[in-house]
Amino acid sequence: MQILDLKNKIGKSSLEELGLGRPVIDEGDLEKSVTKILKKVKTKGDSAIRAFTQLLDGVKVKKLAVTEKEIQEADKLVSEELKNAIRLAASNIRKFHEAQVNRTGIIETMPGVECWSRSIPIERVGLYIPAGSAPLFSSLLMLGIPAAIAGCEQIVLCTPPDKEGRVHPAILFSAALIGITKIFKCGGAQAIAGMAYGTESISRVYKIFGPGNRFVTMAKQLVQKDGISIDMPAGPTELLVYADDEADPVFVAADLLSQAEHGADSQVILVGSRESVVRSVRLELDKQLESLPRKEIAEKSLANSKAVLIEDETEAIKLINAYAPEHLILNCINADALATKVINAGSVFIGNYSPESAGDYASGTNHVLPTNGYAKSYSGVSVDSFVKKISYQKITEEGLKNIGPAIELMAAAEGLEGHKRAVEYRLKNKG
Amino acid sequence: MQILDLKNKIGKSSLEELGLGRPVIDEGDLEKSVTKILKKVKTKGDSAIRAFTQLLDGVKVKKLAVTEKEIQEADKLVSEELKNAIRLAASNIRKFHEAQVNRTGIIETMPGVECWSRSIPIERVGLYIPAGSAPLFSSLLMLGIPAAIAGCEQIVLCTPPDKEGRVHPAILFSAALIGITKIFKCGGAQAIAGMAYGTESISRVYKIFGPGNRFVTMAKQLVQKDGISIDMPAGPTELLVYADDEADPVFVAADLLSQAEHGADSQVILVGSRESVVRSVRLELDKQLESLPRKEIAEKSLANSKAVLIEDETEAIKLINAYAPEHLILNCINADALATKVINAGSVFIGNYSPESAGDYASGTNHVLPTNGYAKSYSGVSVDSFVKKISYQKITEEGLKNIGPAIELMAAAEGLEGHKRAVEYRLKNKG
Repeated sequence: MQILDLKNKIGKSSLEELGLGRPVIDEGDLEKSVTKILKKVKTKGDSAIRAFTQLLDGVKVKKLAVTEKEIQEADKLVSEELKNAIRLAASNIRKFHEAQVNRTGIIETMPGVECWSRSIPIERVGLYIPAGSAPLFSSLLMLGIPAAIAGCEQIVLCTPPDKEGRVHPAILFSAALIGITKIFKCGGAQAIAGMAYGTESISRVYKIFGPGNRFVTMAKQLVQKDGISIDMPAGPTELLVYADDEADPVFVAADLLSQAEHGADSQVILVGSRESVVRSVRLELDKQLESLPRKEIAEKSLANSKAVLIEDETEAIKLINAYAPEHLILNCINADALATKVINAGSVFIGNYSPESAGDYASGTNHVLPTNGYAKSYSGVSVDSFVKKISYQKITEEGLKNIGPAIELMAAAEGLEGHKRAVEYRLKNKG
Repeated sequence: MQILDLKNKIGKSSLEELGLGRPVIDEGDLEKSVTKILKKVKTKGDSAIRAFTQLLDGVKVKKLAVTEKEIQEADKLVSEELKNAIRLAASNIRKFHEAQVNRTGIIETMPGVECWSRSIPIERVGLYIPAGSAPLFSSLLMLGIPAAIAGCEQIVLCTPPDKEGRVHPAILFSAALIGITKIFKCGGAQAIAGMAYGTESISRVYKIFGPGNRFVTMAKQLVQKDGISIDMPAGPTELLVYADDEADPVFVAADLLSQAEHGADSQVILVGSRESVVRSVRLELDKQLESLPRKEIAEKSLANSKAVLIEDETEAIKLINAYAPEHLILNCINADALATKVINAGSVFIGNYSPESAGDYASGTNHVLPTNGYAKSYSGVSVDSFVKKISYQKITEEGLKNIGPAIELMAAAEGLEGHKRAVEYRLKNKG
């Protein structure tokens, strides 16, 4: 972890000039390869998915759909302990997300002019859950629970099978807990294509959610051209920790490592005003790293990570808002006050007892969050991600008399006589 | 307007097979030309914008920024009548949109685990207002008012100048009414590039809103690759009218024409179960068309439009939800009941006295809506379009004891030991 002394420099140069630019990923021929996969699946359906699964994942899958029997068997393979943990997490996620359901009433903007909007579930949604380096059943909870709360009629789940052609039992248990029954054994770009275009077994969806590798991310980007919407653009996961003198270096180091172990491209940043704190964290990092099972991955990520020295909290907030981290831990005495000054971040963890992993699994907030600086304009996944809002207006004759003259004047000024007449004819007829 | 008899066929074939497919637009070399413009503006800034404005719009603009003096002069050029109309529309739009502001409290998902989210305005937004065939000051109200309600710190407005290098006074008056002061005289892809990358005079923004021609739409699509977000993908504007026996053919024809006059590519669909109604509307269309100033445009649009005969209301609703129209007028006796069955549409107009032009200008709802079937997964513009939500969690030692064991079990099951330790170390230290 490289130390950058940026005292009195924050806000005066770009992140790139400060050495805090995000990695630019060269996609090379990725777009071409993924386009080929999409086309094949679009025209050949299931057989193309099966062929790519054999070619790319090395697994022969006869039937893409997971059977009822497989779901029942999976139930026996998950320990009661883990089941209870998943149930507790699901309950907290449900509580937090249920409060997001919007209920707005009718607004009478003028007498006789009633306007309202209704949140309506997106009819068909697709969830992608990777299982490459780890079976991410927690991501399934984060996507499936808000989809269920929103009331989506069809929830399709695609997840890659293991070498024996099976889906991880914890994924099947979590799906059953949420009530998801359409589960398909496929991963990568071919899974995204299946959900975007539909195949003999997979129904076409209108919106696709979920994390994934470069192929998945590129496929999600490309199917947008065909009218399918996606949750958000994706980049490597990120954590920024702001630590003051009171922060426990053991906790800070553990948090940084929990992020670094995700992938070699994970972005980890430590921000503080005291070099002594930064040095203690670095020592602790080395110590904890030794026994970490995913040491190799974490080491690679840490090699690109930065510890940034800033002057004071004002500079810290400036840096945070300029960087817009996906995850932000405020491990400092006045974390509450600082939290209110954050305007660009995905999810904020306040104080010494709020590790990122709490939000990753069980606090209740969503862990599908904007990376790569997108927190400046994107929100994380919420119930709102699974609905669209239709607006309504119901106008009476009196109402149209009230707003009609304004409409006529404005339409005429915009040169749209037809718009004017739609009002005029109505008022003339009955005037 | 071609009549399609689709009785008993709805839901059994695709829209394309039924003859209701949307036009597929061949972008040809558009992407290349727009990419060139974006690159030039990115590297050369204002001078490139000025050069493209001269080349493409045939106007020499010395200073891109509209001056305070120009705004004051514009105020004198707008009639008091039109000003009052704009004020009334703005007031209704404000009333409807203010109710969209989200206020969610703190959710204690378990004792000691507090989660909440805050809606935070997107710091810098850019609004594009076209002025080619008409100065769309109504679109400025639809974008500027929710941006102001959201509390966006910087609102940048770009709009093409007329041949004399001036901005239409009604646009400047509307901007002043909302409180927008950063106004720039430029249009097309070069304006989008200016807002996306920033120039000497235009500040860079994080999200770009607004309608526009093919160049603008392509530019918005392309700048997304550089991390700028946009309001929604755009296609030609659309109206579907469902009319029963009681619908007044004069009103229905006027509504269809108000849509058709937008552009030659506007999509207009009439749906009904009675051929007699459809025939009366067609006669009325011919009559009203004669004296319409934008007759030529409307004629072209009507040439591609369809009148669809369906069996009954059940088929009507099926067709509506399959087509997902941007605007939907329910001009029928039981419009209220039907409205509750609509699940895919942008904005719904209920009854005989709710013309689309009411929503276009003054009812209070937003007129920036999803076209091209996107209503299946996208909402129209609202205050939410101008904010992003940050989630927060504040966990006490007791709280972490409550959720910690679940986090540890789940992290271990996902093979993420570092995530587990971030909890473990905290509980061990103080346990």
